Amino acid sequence: MDFALDARTTELRTELLDFVDTHVAPAEARFHDELEALEDRFAWTQAPVLGELRAEARSRGLWNLFLPASDEHPGLGAGLTNLQYAPLAEITGAYGHLAPPALNCAAPDTGNMEVLTMFGTAEQKERWLEPLLDGRIRSAFAMTEPDVASSDATNIETSIRRDGDEYVVNGRKWWITGAMNPECEIFIVMGKTDPEADRHRQQSMLLVPRDTPGLTVVRPMHVLGYDDHEHGGHAELRFTDVRVPASNLIGEEGGGFAIAQARLGPGRIHHCMRAIGVAERAIALMCERVEDRVAFGRPLSRQGVIREWIAESRIAVEQLRLLVLKTAWLMDTSGNRAAHSEIQAIKIATPKVVQEIVDRAIQAHGAGGLSQDFPLASSFAGIRTLRFADGPDEVHKNSLAKTELARQAARREGSRG
Amino acid sequence: MDFALDARTTELRTELLDFVDTHVAPAEARFHDELEALEDRFAWTQAPVLGELRAEARSRGLWNLFLPASDEHPGLGAGLTNLQYAPLAEITGAYGHLAPPALNCAAPDTGNMEVLTMFGTAEQKERWLEPLLDGRIRSAFAMTEPDVASSDATNIETSIRRDGDEYVVNGRKWWITGAMNPECEIFIVMGKTDPEADRHRQQSMLLVPRDTPGLTVVRPMHVLGYDDHEHGGHAELRFTDVRVPASNLIGEEGGGFAIAQARLGPGRIHHCMRAIGVAERAIALMCERVEDRVAFGRPLSRQGVIREWIAESRIAVEQLRLLVLKTAWLMDTSGNRAAHSEIQAIKIATPKVVQEIVDRAIQAHGAGGLSQDFPLASSFAGIRTLRFADGPDEVHKNSLAKTELARQAARREGSRG
Amino acid sequence: MDFALDARTTELRTELLDFVDTHVAPAEARFHDELEALEDRFAWTQAPVLGELRAEARSRGLWNLFLPASDEHPGLGAGLTNLQYAPLAEITGAYGHLAPPALNCAAPDTGNMEVLTMFGTAEQKERWLEPLLDGRIRSAFAMTEPDVASSDATNIETSIRRDGDEYVVNGRKWWITGAMNPECEIFIVMGKTDPEADRHRQQSMLLVPRDTPGLTVVRPMHVLGYDDHEHGGHAELRFTDVRVPASNLIGEEGGGFAIAQARLGPGRIHHCMRAIGVAERAIALMCERVEDRVAFGRPLSRQGVIREWIAESRIAVEQLRLLVLKTAWLMDTSGNRAAHSEIQAIKIATPKVVQEIVDRAIQAHGAGGLSQDFPLASSFAGIRTLRFADGPDEVHKNSLAKTELARQAARREGSRG
Amino acid sequence: MDFALDARTTELRTELLDFVDTHVAPAEARFHDELEALEDRFAWTQAPVLGELRAEARSRGLWNLFLPASDEHPGLGAGLTNLQYAPLAEITGAYGHLAPPALNCAAPDTGNMEVLTMFGTAEQKERWLEPLLDGRIRSAFAMTEPDVASSDATNIETSIRRDGDEYVVNGRKWWITGAMNPECEIFIVMGKTDPEADRHRQQSMLLVPRDTPGLTVVRPMHVLGYDDHEHGGHAELRFTDVRVPASNLIGEEGGGFAIAQARLGPGRIHHCMRAIGVAERAIALMCERVEDRVAFGRPLSRQGVIREWIAESRIAVEQLRLLVLKTAWLMDTSGNRAAHSEIQAIKIATPKVVQEIVDRAIQAHGAGGLSQDFPLASSFAGIRTLRFADGPDEVHKNSLAKTELARQAARREGSRG
Repeated sequence: MDFALDARTTELRTELLDFVDTHVAPAEARFHDELEALEDRFAWTQAPVLGELRAEARSRGLWNLFLPASDEHPGLGAGLTNLQYAPLAEITGAYGHLAPPALNCAAPDTGNMEVLTMFGTAEQKERWLEPLLDGRIRSAFAMTEPDVASSDATNIETSIRRDGDEYVVNGRKWWITGAMNPECEIFIVMGKTDPEADRHRQQSMLLVPRDTPGLTVVRPMHVLGYDDHEHGGHAELRFTDVRVPASNLIGEEGGGFAIAQARLGPGRIHHCMRAIGVAERAIALMCERVEDRVAFGRPLSRQGVIREWIAESRIAVEQLRLLVLKTAWLMDTSGNRAAHSEIQAIKIATPKVVQEIVDRAIQAHGAGGLSQDFPLASSFAGIRTLRFADGPDEVHKNSLAKTELARQAARREGSRG
Repeated sequence: MDFALDARTTELRTELLDFVDTHVAPAEARFHDELEALEDRFAWTQAPVLGELRAEARSRGLWNLFLPASDEHPGLGAGLTNLQYAPLAEITGAYGHLAPPALNCAAPDTGNMEVLTMFGTAEQKERWLEPLLDGRIRSAFAMTEPDVASSDATNIETSIRRDGDEYVVNGRKWWITGAMNPECEIFIVMGKTDPEADRHRQQSMLLVPRDTPGLTVVRPMHVLGYDDHEHGGHAELRFTDVRVPASNLIGEEGGGFAIAQARLGPGRIHHCMRAIGVAERAIALMCERVEDRVAFGRPLSRQGVIREWIAESRIAVEQLRLLVLKTAWLMDTSGNRAAHSEIQAIKIATPKVVQEIVDRAIQAHGAGGLSQDFPLASSFAGIRTLRFADGPDEVHKNSLAKTELARQAARREGSRG
Repeated sequence: MDFALDARTTELRTELLDFVDTHVAPAEARFHDELEALEDRFAWTQAPVLGELRAEARSRGLWNLFLPASDEHPGLGAGLTNLQYAPLAEITGAYGHLAPPALNCAAPDTGNMEVLTMFGTAEQKERWLEPLLDGRIRSAFAMTEPDVASSDATNIETSIRRDGDEYVVNGRKWWITGAMNPECEIFIVMGKTDPEADRHRQQSMLLVPRDTPGLTVVRPMHVLGYDDHEHGGHAELRFTDVRVPASNLIGEEGGGFAIAQARLGPGRIHHCMRAIGVAERAIALMCERVEDRVAFGRPLSRQGVIREWIAESRIAVEQLRLLVLKTAWLMDTSGNRAAHSEIQAIKIATPKVVQEIVDRAIQAHGAGGLSQDFPLASSFAGIRTLRFADGPDEVHKNSLAKTELARQAARREGSRG
Repeated sequence: MDFALDARTTELRTELLDFVDTHVAPAEARFHDELEALEDRFAWTQAPVLGELRAEARSRGLWNLFLPASDEHPGLGAGLTNLQYAPLAEITGAYGHLAPPALNCAAPDTGNMEVLTMFGTAEQKERWLEPLLDGRIRSAFAMTEPDVASSDATNIETSIRRDGDEYVVNGRKWWITGAMNPECEIFIVMGKTDPEADRHRQQSMLLVPRDTPGLTVVRPMHVLGYDDHEHGGHAELRFTDVRVPASNLIGEEGGGFAIAQARLGPGRIHHCMRAIGVAERAIALMCERVEDRVAFGRPLSRQGVIREWIAESRIAVEQLRLLVLKTAWLMDTSGNRAAHSEIQAIKIATPKVVQEIVDRAIQAHGAGGLSQDFPLASSFAGIRTLRFADGPDEVHKNSLAKTELARQAARREGSRG
């Protein structure tokens, strides 16, 4: 369990820090202005500054860092381990609207590229993976549904019915991140091909191009007042007799649940890595703010309650980072399945801790902290969604406890045996 | 300390509940649609449905309920005590964007009307108070400044300089609620007339009409992702050599701090009363939601963690309401100054408790809870601002503790004496 | 809902405050010394100072204040309502080891006297109730069992079998408060007379004198290191073919659950009233301590974190007291059954809040706060047990939530109808 | 930052686990019985079972594991790094009364041996260090005083005055752990040799044998209801003109503060390591208990709230352990001074987290959890003291925040430069 940075990570980190300081940070305001000036503010990939940043990042070798090496797809992505990627993803998280897409490392494209890399046919890879890796198109992942508790995959109601050489999709989805962007060309849709099959063999994954007849983008969902246009929003979608060729199936019929699970592990740890970057930026902003402000004769930075916030934030984020690193290391050395409990643990712990830190930083800023003048309010909203995304905390706690109970029972059994 | 509803309150409450159920609740969606259709979405007072609601409320005697009786202004307002007003304000709080303005009981107009009632000259009352009481115009209260910790009134930097028969105002303000609405015609501005005077005699209050040259509405401030256009937003203002007649002074030079204090007490308790209504609506929505949703074979309402949320929410809101009622009773019987610690206590306790309840209700709703489909996310944002409004929690806790320490010291002294 | 003190309560309160200040507070150290000097330190009723205090209290009319008036037993007890008793019980709570017994108002005797008053036969009253009311003997209430979760009364395993003119008891009990005192002469024992009956008709209550053959006092239970000898400890008991006359049955066979419920309501609110007194004493001690101590150049009382503790403690205890008063008022006006949810609410809220306050007061005292030099550590242990006593918090939260869900469903139904 | 167990640690860990399972765990009850049977229950080192365990541990090479290697004292102790010692100390922590002393690794002897190793003269080492390392005598560390906030070393009031060839000590100390044991032969006493010197040069450390005239052991301090006789209690001491040879000075005059600091770093991390063992045992006991107990038709282990407790406990302890390991690694690689903030962080985080876990485990056990039947209540008391020991949390948070503020200011300076 060695968390030291190796040579390659150190080199990439230096490069990335320089890129972020010299290019990303100064571009934030321009990015927002350019988005406001677009005819369709959700078409975020059209912002000129983003194109410039992407070109610069690519020229520096900061591209597709998220994609792990594999024998099956030599040469794709940067081939970093999770442990190598973690400190890099953290840095991008502090500039969450701009740095991840600049590096072609933004969700949900990252997860979708992983799915295609692992499960796609050669044809699917050529048609969709290549332009995604090249940053030419965008994608979405359509799993969550409005009418059911989607944390339980057996609740999924969207149907995918085979009809000759085609699949026919009917159903509703919502919170489909990125899908409001007209340049989001391809959707990976989860639905049921066989509602009578075993619990985890009912679901399949299908590629549905945006322009397929019967697919309607109904409306954008808001998050605490934000439409999140900076990364394509969150769409509600309706599928009415949507037909795609049978070759658009990813993997096999009934493989949808397994693919979703394979996708979620890395997705969750990436979220957590970036969230730590959010926390670090919040701490930095809080520390800066409280030095400047004077109330009742003393700078806020000398007041006990503020110091308690800073101390507790620092202590919490240190612990969190270590747990994320341990999880990354375990995924690298033992596989994602073996790291299941650890992935759940960081999925549960991270949003709660980071939300508290951001909330304290907001409070330290006064009303300004909730406004558009600092990135804190927007971070708060983003982090808050993580307490639902990929299943609410409560589902994961329940499951993690079950594992712990079984582990302890086995231990007792062992010590008696 | 009798909290029972008297006959008049019971009657008004019945009327108000009927009005809310039959008129306000059904009008919420229409109000939002009408606002979106306006050329200037901040001009919320132009929404036709609001006019209809106001007419209906007035015809039912539900008008200006907030304004207490007084020998000095017989006949103005409903003349309710705080204890009578509390259960009514709570009901309006559940429909916070629509019910308070329908009854002409919305902040910041309420506080401004109180200021003019208490401190205005006959001329000021005729010119500004009457149209406000009549609901014909809107007003704003300009105190908070961007560059200083405004919780400490001695930090205020806006200057109000006497020049012959006029006052000249220079400075910046922000978070001026309601001021983005073009129909907000009059601003009560706090500034310093004498920076050399005693700590609490430096400030004065001045009436500045919206159309006075030199007054610029710079931009709307956002709260999380909301612009709060439903009640006129929160403006940043710039005053550059703004000149008004000397007769626009409210009260006397150096009286600004005292006027602000007089205004804040009732303002705070009104916020708290309405916030309890927000909490009750959140609990009701949470209970409804969890009966409907099934996950892992059982409705959420039968899951232990959800039940814990419901129980803790109910227990917390009961305690909070009682403390608000006690505070109202104390203000009624002993005056606002005697209730200073109690007002601070509810100011501190309410946002925290209600925020937690709303947050749990959001979590029980899944991602939808954060969206525009339920009032929860918007309530969350509104409640979050209360932890700053009129001074951050931390300032009030410090002050309340000082009072407690003094009280305990006096008690020890007494028991020794 | 009028919480003002009436004339009688005001008079009793003045008398009680004087008694506590002049007699109880100065006697605390002597009481502990006398207990240590006893041959059996659990025989707390033998401490001479206690006898003196009891005589004094009685002469002042401060005796059996807990016992409500009733048509069925005119002349017994002080006949106070719960609302009248609350502020008096709070005062005694601050001196929890000494003041309640001095007034013959200490648990579990209070609950046992209520049971006998309500359900006892004339013979039982003469034999046991009179000496209890007179303070000549002590009693215990034997319900909790070591082998089962006793919060679920259907789990009770102790059997009470009818055999001719006698009942035969077999089983184990623990945490039987007061039973280590050899002067605790009578036990009210809950057991099952009919395990096949309906869920809440299986249990019966029986009077078992201490000296009955087959009844063994096994050992004292400890609470966080305390043996609680100051009020007779908590015994583990074994019943082996213990025989008592059939006339020792309280009420009817199968009535045990109902009697337990009738006993628990008042018992719980008395605990809560006294616990508020514990919190008030903790706040007073905390405030005194932090004025005296200097660290890093400033008294602790001027440090922000300490002030936050004081403010939060004051705000929390104010809310709690109001909820207890409301519950008392509801019990008085609508009966204990109608106040079921409110009794649960205070049962849940009180220990948690008071434990936090006492914990903060301990922390403000430094290590001394945990020691025998202040009453805080002992209070902490006592309050901690309330989170289990009469059922753990979790059981009550679950039940309260069920009631709330039903209430909200009825409301929705009503508003639709 | 490699946290993997190396070969030596793995070997020691296997040995230690076997020793604990086969010898320590079965001896717990006997140890307590033997202590109760002693004439002086504080003379814990006289319990025969302890002697047996110590012999066994020593024969297995499990002796003085705490003492790091050093060029200055080759051959003393096991020479483990902090990182190697951490997983071993954790195991002993689960059996905190018995395992650490069995291995001669119990506080305060460990810290005192370190002080003598680092700062003792050859004569002092021969006279005191050797028998301590050999386990033949016990020692105490006398720093905390009753009358001042000892977290601020400048408050120390005990005077150490040079008089010819002797030092004369006057003052009071309390909470001197281990000192109630009559076999505790030597005290390291901190006092002021020069109250006029610089803030951190006023204090000196002196060796004072137990039997020196003028040294009185006044009384044992209690922790909650525990006297902690299992490890010699906590004594109040009075020094009245206590004279020792000048050669009893440790290090130099004015060096007391530096020696205390040198002692505290390792002491704190050892406490934290062992506390994690306490948490692990609490989780294990909680998991076992909830499988057995049934309430309302389902085992507790299937109830959502209990599962939440288990999940949160597991997640918290994982994070804590990683932070302790990182701190150990930093101390090993960069020195204790460089790890100052990290040591503070674990000192702050550990007691809070472990206290919560133990509290949950207690609640899951019902009233039994607070009793002598499980080790939880005693653990709770022990952990609670850690929130004061070596300075209260609040002092450390304040200091850690100051460091963070400075670090962030330097970073801003750097990024601007």
